[in-house]
Amino acid sequence: MGVRELGLPERLGSGESLPSRVEIWEVGPRDGLQNETEVVPVEVKVEFLDRLARAGLTTLEATSFVHPKWVPQLADAEELLARLDRRDGVRYPVLVPNERGLDRALAAGVTHVAVFASATETFARRNLNSGLDAQFAMFEPVIARARESGLDVRGYVSMCFGDPWEGAVAPEQVVAVGKRLLDAGCSQLSLGDTIGVATAASVERVLDAFTESGVAIGDLAVHFHDTYGQALANTLAALRKGVTTVDSSAGGLGGCPYAESATGNLATEDLVWLLDGLGIEHGVDFDALVETSAWMATRLGRPSPSRVVRALAG
Amino acid sequence: MGVRELGLPERLGSGESLPSRVEIWEVGPRDGLQNETEVVPVEVKVEFLDRLARAGLTTLEATSFVHPKWVPQLADAEELLARLDRRDGVRYPVLVPNERGLDRALAAGVTHVAVFASATETFARRNLNSGLDAQFAMFEPVIARARESGLDVRGYVSMCFGDPWEGAVAPEQVVAVGKRLLDAGCSQLSLGDTIGVATAASVERVLDAFTESGVAIGDLAVHFHDTYGQALANTLAALRKGVTTVDSSAGGLGGCPYAESATGNLATEDLVWLLDGLGIEHGVDFDALVETSAWMATRLGRPSPSRVVRALAG
Repeated sequence: MGVRELGLPERLGSGESLPSRVEIWEVGPRDGLQNETEVVPVEVKVEFLDRLARAGLTTLEATSFVHPKWVPQLADAEELLARLDRRDGVRYPVLVPNERGLDRALAAGVTHVAVFASATETFARRNLNSGLDAQFAMFEPVIARARESGLDVRGYVSMCFGDPWEGAVAPEQVVAVGKRLLDAGCSQLSLGDTIGVATAASVERVLDAFTESGVAIGDLAVHFHDTYGQALANTLAALRKGVTTVDSSAGGLGGCPYAESATGNLATEDLVWLLDGLGIEHGVDFDALVETSAWMATRLGRPSPSRVVRALAG
Repeated sequence: MGVRELGLPERLGSGESLPSRVEIWEVGPRDGLQNETEVVPVEVKVEFLDRLARAGLTTLEATSFVHPKWVPQLADAEELLARLDRRDGVRYPVLVPNERGLDRALAAGVTHVAVFASATETFARRNLNSGLDAQFAMFEPVIARARESGLDVRGYVSMCFGDPWEGAVAPEQVVAVGKRLLDAGCSQLSLGDTIGVATAASVERVLDAFTESGVAIGDLAVHFHDTYGQALANTLAALRKGVTTVDSSAGGLGGCPYAESATGNLATEDLVWLLDGLGIEHGVDFDALVETSAWMATRLGRPSPSRVVRALAG
């Protein structure tokens, strides 16, 4: 029995406005599969993307043009995009870490790219081999050239709610990084809780810091990890603040691959269940989505981390 | 790194009032262990309860006086209570299904009991062998006699948000059942989402129906299951409505025992993580709680369903 058979949904009665429609930014093919120890065959990736598009998802983060030395799981980016039947009305953004990545993305004919920045000094140095400021010296020419080439650019901001080395992250610092990405030409920010430590209160705090500094809530997406079980509660808090783009991963792909039960990205199925309950449109065929994640779990040889998928397809 | 190291929590800025303190009603020893295929030895149960009390939990639902034929896992209720070192300041409520159960509970010297009612006709017939009205003929004398004996009585209302046979459940029907339990002498209702289908919107709808009918929000507890990943988001919705008692199960015990990954009750650890983030007092020593659940998972021979426990103790 789905939530939709349980009566007509109604809006939360709190006086806050929930959005009437949410765009789901599906990150499973990129953020999920890049964490697999065994490389997924390109034809499986193509079928995964095709099934997700048929299930009604209209934003599919397809792959990353990071150097294959760093992420061998996505070394087939060119071949994937060449094989992919890109559908009308579906965006297939790709991650580009630098100018070389942008060259590859342009050659592959992509129309949407994303850059991946850090909100904290330590993570910038560890993950990007640059400081908090130095990362912009790398990104700004990439964003500028992407825009000149007519591409849309999304800016990921990681460690927005906490950092394993620095602990708490000041919302002002997150806003400073985010605004610099917007000023450089990003059309949207995805605020990432990379280590899963956000709670509803810190989500509201960071979103408020952005809107108080003049950033429109419509330019902000949220990207939660379920490490401590908070991802969906955090999403609810963000929706109540008016956020209309939510990142999620079909079947919850993206957990640590060497621990069967590890939890990663917010599962798209769990998100859709919440949105259905709240009466928020999303355009996704729930049954087709669950079927796709169950199929992918079989390909990966382990159960889906999504509670919905396990309950319905387990 | 715990959420508490991530900076001082602040209140949600929505204008709604969150409670300053929440009472966690720990149901793991009863609602969790009653689902185990293999009976847990009584000395393990006693140690589990003792560890939970030492971790600062002050309401521990200890066992059930249901007939051992139905729940052999809790057939040791008398022995458990006899062995248990009941601490000052800690309540040890027990479930009593009928007059015989109350006799046993009184003989064991309990001070808090709970009765288990259904919000729907079908579940009442299937689980309690009585209709929706007939269940009161069974409960009312139990509640009356418990009260006369000086006991506090809690009323569980199951299937408040959906029923596997009836689908949607009208909030008015839930309110009617709940009010009848309050009128009979229950001091508190625990509104149960027995099959995990509630979402934030239906939680608010049911709570509003109660308060609009004159029931104080302080007389209502919530009891969520994480079948579809919604339990914590539902809890957040309930807290924002002013609910101050939340049922949860240490380590998320209570999943279907024959499926390793099945999800059951809201995990107490995930709840504590949320409450810490929201700056809501609860009195629980988080590390001692996680350690207890990790210990219990070892006793049960399978990983804890709690995301927090898996992340910190896995």
